[in-house]
Amino acid sequence: MNPPAPELTLDPADWTELRTLGHRMLDDLFDYLMHVRERPVWQPMPGAARARLAEPVPRTPQPLAAVYEQFARDVLPYPLGNIHPRFWGWVIGTGTPQGMLADMLAAGMNTQAAGVQEAGRHVEEQTLAWLAELLGFPRGSSGLFVSGGSMANLVALAVARQAKAGFAVRDTGLHGSPAPLTVYASTEVHSSVRKAVELMGIGTANLKLIPVDREYRIVVPELAAAIARDRAAGARPIAVVGTAGTVNTGATDDLAALAAVCRQEGLWFHVDGAFGALVALAPELKPILAGLEQADSVAFDLHKWGYLPFEVGCTLVRHPDVHRDTFAVAPSYLGATARGPAAGGVLFADLGVQLSRGFRALKVWMALKTHGTDLIGRLIAQNVAQARYLADLVDRHPRLERLAPAPLNIVCFRFVVPGQDDAALNALNQEILWRIQETGVALPSHTMLGGRFAIRVAITNHRSRREDFAALVQAVMDVGTAVLEGR
Amino acid sequence: MNPPAPELTLDPADWTELRTLGHRMLDDLFDYLMHVRERPVWQPMPGAARARLAEPVPRTPQPLAAVYEQFARDVLPYPLGNIHPRFWGWVIGTGTPQGMLADMLAAGMNTQAAGVQEAGRHVEEQTLAWLAELLGFPRGSSGLFVSGGSMANLVALAVARQAKAGFAVRDTGLHGSPAPLTVYASTEVHSSVRKAVELMGIGTANLKLIPVDREYRIVVPELAAAIARDRAAGARPIAVVGTAGTVNTGATDDLAALAAVCRQEGLWFHVDGAFGALVALAPELKPILAGLEQADSVAFDLHKWGYLPFEVGCTLVRHPDVHRDTFAVAPSYLGATARGPAAGGVLFADLGVQLSRGFRALKVWMALKTHGTDLIGRLIAQNVAQARYLADLVDRHPRLERLAPAPLNIVCFRFVVPGQDDAALNALNQEILWRIQETGVALPSHTMLGGRFAIRVAITNHRSRREDFAALVQAVMDVGTAVLEGR
Repeated sequence: MNPPAPELTLDPADWTELRTLGHRMLDDLFDYLMHVRERPVWQPMPGAARARLAEPVPRTPQPLAAVYEQFARDVLPYPLGNIHPRFWGWVIGTGTPQGMLADMLAAGMNTQAAGVQEAGRHVEEQTLAWLAELLGFPRGSSGLFVSGGSMANLVALAVARQAKAGFAVRDTGLHGSPAPLTVYASTEVHSSVRKAVELMGIGTANLKLIPVDREYRIVVPELAAAIARDRAAGARPIAVVGTAGTVNTGATDDLAALAAVCRQEGLWFHVDGAFGALVALAPELKPILAGLEQADSVAFDLHKWGYLPFEVGCTLVRHPDVHRDTFAVAPSYLGATARGPAAGGVLFADLGVQLSRGFRALKVWMALKTHGTDLIGRLIAQNVAQARYLADLVDRHPRLERLAPAPLNIVCFRFVVPGQDDAALNALNQEILWRIQETGVALPSHTMLGGRFAIRVAITNHRSRREDFAALVQAVMDVGTAVLEGR
Repeated sequence: MNPPAPELTLDPADWTELRTLGHRMLDDLFDYLMHVRERPVWQPMPGAARARLAEPVPRTPQPLAAVYEQFARDVLPYPLGNIHPRFWGWVIGTGTPQGMLADMLAAGMNTQAAGVQEAGRHVEEQTLAWLAELLGFPRGSSGLFVSGGSMANLVALAVARQAKAGFAVRDTGLHGSPAPLTVYASTEVHSSVRKAVELMGIGTANLKLIPVDREYRIVVPELAAAIARDRAAGARPIAVVGTAGTVNTGATDDLAALAAVCRQEGLWFHVDGAFGALVALAPELKPILAGLEQADSVAFDLHKWGYLPFEVGCTLVRHPDVHRDTFAVAPSYLGATARGPAAGGVLFADLGVQLSRGFRALKVWMALKTHGTDLIGRLIAQNVAQARYLADLVDRHPRLERLAPAPLNIVCFRFVVPGQDDAALNALNQEILWRIQETGVALPSHTMLGGRFAIRVAITNHRSRREDFAALVQAVMDVGTAVLEGR
């Protein structure tokens, strides 16, 4: 057990060699990003590349240059494609070269951002304060950066449970609940809310999904009726989740009306604004969010419509004390001290699940300062205008049919053939979508709307241009025609 | 709402300028890491630097070079210090320059690693398979990388609840439980397990903390008795959490004995091996983990004793079907398709909380291949030998007292003064610790052991050398003497 001498380290024996290789990697990445438009959006990872991954446990070292070579040849060319100008699948951000550099800085500095006394804590606090102000949350709101929207919703709903359960939920768990706790959202709510409700032990049966209107917005009178019905049946309603930007169609609930219901009923009002909340940065779009400023909490991503690379989501909470009461623990090795690095405790670890935390705030801070929030708002507005442009192309085209309103950045449509029923059109449009994806010309995803298969274009992409949407329409027409002709 | 022409993008107008700045950043980071030993471990962020952070919302852009200059001047010099050779606070990894480059590559590629068809999925699957093999988990185990150990424990305990609740817990929540679900761990269990049990709605009252012996290991007969007692009282025990490497003293429970109890009682056996599990890479230490290979799940970090930069933890689960059944949801926009990028569904999103996921697997894959797992194991053994070395220095020193066994990489001790009681020594050692932290010479943290304040040294640092521990002992003596002399 005696250590060998000289002692080992993972630092390189030759820093110059590593430095040279690092610069080559960075150059390659810049080339990769500069020329992304020239490559297919997506292409499957070739079998040979996958086969080369299938190595036994690497017990002995390989030169980093060789490992990098394998990465550059077999991995880097086969991303999902969300960095590409014609990627509009699901809701995924593009990333930026500046964000890449910020992640590099964060990884090199590698500070533990639990919220003790180090610079990352202060950067995160400042950045959260900016976001709170931009979203209309009061000064003194609490918040933290998390891995993404799913985690952001989970954190917020945990705070809601703490605030509204009416019993010592951390101590007894839901075993101590005198009545089922119920949570309300529309049928269009994101699956992460269901996941959160399940993980928290509330159960999907107690996530009450309220119908939506033709614009995919929650029907508020139905919500009020459901709350009354559940109360009469002995349940304890605790929270309403409004959505700012549904994943299927980009609808935003009437947040002001939901806030009013919550105020009247004494419920927690949480807004899942995974992508929609950042619309607050675009003055001409901000009215969509009216009522958000009354929410008790909001969850949103910076790696979607903030255009940043993975992973960074955010929860903001109006009530810092309840937020802390939800998560704070103080084991003997973690207590706040009067001086030193632990002075003031672990601010952010006491506000969420994570204790060890990386410095994901850095890329947000740098992005907001470097781009300016006005420009990010203009890009968001540009994406909405692009959706409008695509919707217009679809609406004017005799062979295309729009399948839902496009109030924000999502357009759902299909290729139609006179005389074909929905079943036939569903199969046809699935085939069209696959071919478009497989040829790498563009990458929309799909959804089902009222039993109809929709090609779904969600635009949170700072590299897209109007011509890209025209190219998509052309591709749908070309591929649709080819499929019909049996090609 | 018409988009301006030409359309906006966040890509730079001048790639050459950005590229040049990126290379400067990278050079600065290499200098920063090469010379880390010459700087103080920790120093508080100066008031002036904090004051410069306090800007209003940055609505207009600032040059990235200027933002970087602020970062380099006001942020980068003030990390927590875990990159430093004499940082041994809490349990935090050091990071590596190679890991920094891998994070840069991941951020540039920026693929969505939910587990659809892209290269990141296959890299993650391969890397998880290696780790499963190294930890003695069977081929075909499931797993995923997460933000860290807290999340890894939460994921594993959610699977345990799903497996053992005995009712449709996702549907009804704990409201549907015929009996309180109970979870068992020692009094030394990490606070993240308590957090997980609370978040899951089981409640801290149902996390049964079993006493430990003088070596801080769970007393297995007490565990068996508690399970029997709780069953008799109508509870439904579901899981036992064994610890591989407690945070206070580095103790490891008798995992084989815990496995036997769980087998007999039909309970889920989870191991929190946040740092201890990677001891499996060091053949001479692996016997400590005997029984781990029988666990149903294990949680561990790569950003602790894997030496990687934040954030990367891992959950492995022996039962892939239950793992998936715990988290999988299939909304209409996310369903698996037969072809295209969504073919095969969202492997990893169905195994945890996150839907959007970054490519954190990349740095693990690159590190295992570049360093080789043997070398990582040798570094772990080196840290254990360094702890032994420090423990010996303490034991041989008349003015130092070891406060706990040091079976792994954690040493707890204090400065003693003949005739002073614990209260006086606690205050004295707190003062010693603060001064050492504040002068930046080293960064141990503290814990309380039986009412006694311990200076706690946790070694998961590939930059530490034996001379660093001798320097710590000298600093404790110098500072202790100075305090006693009223200096």
